[in-house]
Amino acid sequence: MSLLVTGSIGIDTVKTPSGHREDCLGGSAVYFSMAASFFAPVRFVGVIGDDCPFDLAKVFTGREVDLTGLETRAGSKTFRWAGSYHGAMNERTTDSVELNVLAEAPPKVPDVYRDSKYVFLANTAPALQMELLEQVDKPQFVAADTMNMWITNHTKDLGELLKKIDCLVLNDEEARLLSGQTNLIEAAGSVLDMGPGVVIVKKGEAGSFMATADGERFILPGYPATQVLDPTGAGDSFAGGLMGYIAKAGKIDKDTLRKAIAYGTVIASFTIAEFSLNGLASISLEDIENRLETLRKSVIF
Amino acid sequence: MSLLVTGSIGIDTVKTPSGHREDCLGGSAVYFSMAASFFAPVRFVGVIGDDCPFDLAKVFTGREVDLTGLETRAGSKTFRWAGSYHGAMNERTTDSVELNVLAEAPPKVPDVYRDSKYVFLANTAPALQMELLEQVDKPQFVAADTMNMWITNHTKDLGELLKKIDCLVLNDEEARLLSGQTNLIEAAGSVLDMGPGVVIVKKGEAGSFMATADGERFILPGYPATQVLDPTGAGDSFAGGLMGYIAKAGKIDKDTLRKAIAYGTVIASFTIAEFSLNGLASISLEDIENRLETLRKSVIF
Repeated sequence: MSLLVTGSIGIDTVKTPSGHREDCLGGSAVYFSMAASFFAPVRFVGVIGDDCPFDLAKVFTGREVDLTGLETRAGSKTFRWAGSYHGAMNERTTDSVELNVLAEAPPKVPDVYRDSKYVFLANTAPALQMELLEQVDKPQFVAADTMNMWITNHTKDLGELLKKIDCLVLNDEEARLLSGQTNLIEAAGSVLDMGPGVVIVKKGEAGSFMATADGERFILPGYPATQVLDPTGAGDSFAGGLMGYIAKAGKIDKDTLRKAIAYGTVIASFTIAEFSLNGLASISLEDIENRLETLRKSVIF
Repeated sequence: MSLLVTGSIGIDTVKTPSGHREDCLGGSAVYFSMAASFFAPVRFVGVIGDDCPFDLAKVFTGREVDLTGLETRAGSKTFRWAGSYHGAMNERTTDSVELNVLAEAPPKVPDVYRDSKYVFLANTAPALQMELLEQVDKPQFVAADTMNMWITNHTKDLGELLKKIDCLVLNDEEARLLSGQTNLIEAAGSVLDMGPGVVIVKKGEAGSFMATADGERFILPGYPATQVLDPTGAGDSFAGGLMGYIAKAGKIDKDTLRKAIAYGTVIASFTIAEFSLNGLASISLEDIENRLETLRKSVIF
């Protein structure tokens, strides 16, 4: 089924205890699409400047990623991000951000995408997320990501958005900030009260937690990864695996959601094993299925 | 089957964001025994001063905890600990420690305990743990806990101990410190190389991870507890549930180890729900079984 993603394309510079990469491809929509395309065709919406050194058509060669919604804006500059990871890579500092084209008008959702059934609104201003969502006719399942800046400074817009989406994906800190609750289980419950029927809280290497409005609770540890080179894109890859699997399944029952989270978890473990998109570019669906089976067996008692 | 524990009895003073308790009962052997006694009879070894305000026989009324090995030492003072928890209670600061009787000669293991098959050596100096272990004839499965102070300052003794035990239970920080590895999976592997056939890494609310020398890997998230009043004793209760279940099962295959970790996880969730021993004192085996079932269903996909 048709899966649409709106998000960023970035030129990333990353420092980790394992190494350093300058000007590599990144961005939420890119990681998401790479991950989701293992399961379902992806409709891509994003904007770059005419300085962008990457050819996304080439990056996605062999994958069903529709780039009709990729806008190259003349005279604008591509989004840039630089960050560093420390210690066990649980801590990240942002070294610099140049929003560039992301601070301008958002890209338009192409008319041919209006019938998309599954939609992921990657992290951006909630007002923009709503504007993008309004360009889709009758989505069946809409998930969104958010971050501290919007929770703190765009509270009203975010509140509006939460009433219009089915699923919010956020990390533990963000869940605590949004809900005002310290306990993550209670935090997830409070976020459910704000609108979405499904809340997924990501806890880094500690895994994730799902709560639904009809009382379903699912907890999954992170994949026991031994190779962690660069955590950039882990969350967006998680969302890509999650939404890709849901779009492939074409339904949103609780078993589908659980499996979708497991796929998201496994995909993220490949992302962090290499810099930039390299971890995702070098694997097959079989590799993913193998790790899924390992994870499944690792949690049974 | 006979389960022996050596550890501390403490007079604890605890501050948490939820409240404050002075001079309440604590100590590793006490938490351990309370937890383990849901599954198997416990043989208790510990020492208090004659100032101890608690009647342990009364505390363990209705539970099969043999106090033959409890020594009340005339003229000595009972161990005291005071600590504070902050934020989401993941951080603890020790406000004061008075080792008192714990700085003196260890208690003796009674002769009637020499035939114990299952042994847990709670955290203390590794030389003392070895001295206690030598007083048991042919234990079948010996587990031990340790902490930063021994890892850093008693490295050689700890190395000796690790060759004599079957299972080391430690937290994530300690596993990193002991192994010199940042990645927890690799850290557990390095600790296996030091001797024990089973390593269990506790990660607080993130759950735990088991690695065995024959390649078994098990990961379990923490129980999704909404009530967290006082984390004191969570680790010792975890160990108590773990070892109590193993002693009850009377075998140490991989399924038993997995279930034992699950019981330990669930028991710890009751401990942290109240101050001191109150969380464990007020529950039944049925309550434990119910949470085990909830946890089992929460991780399946």
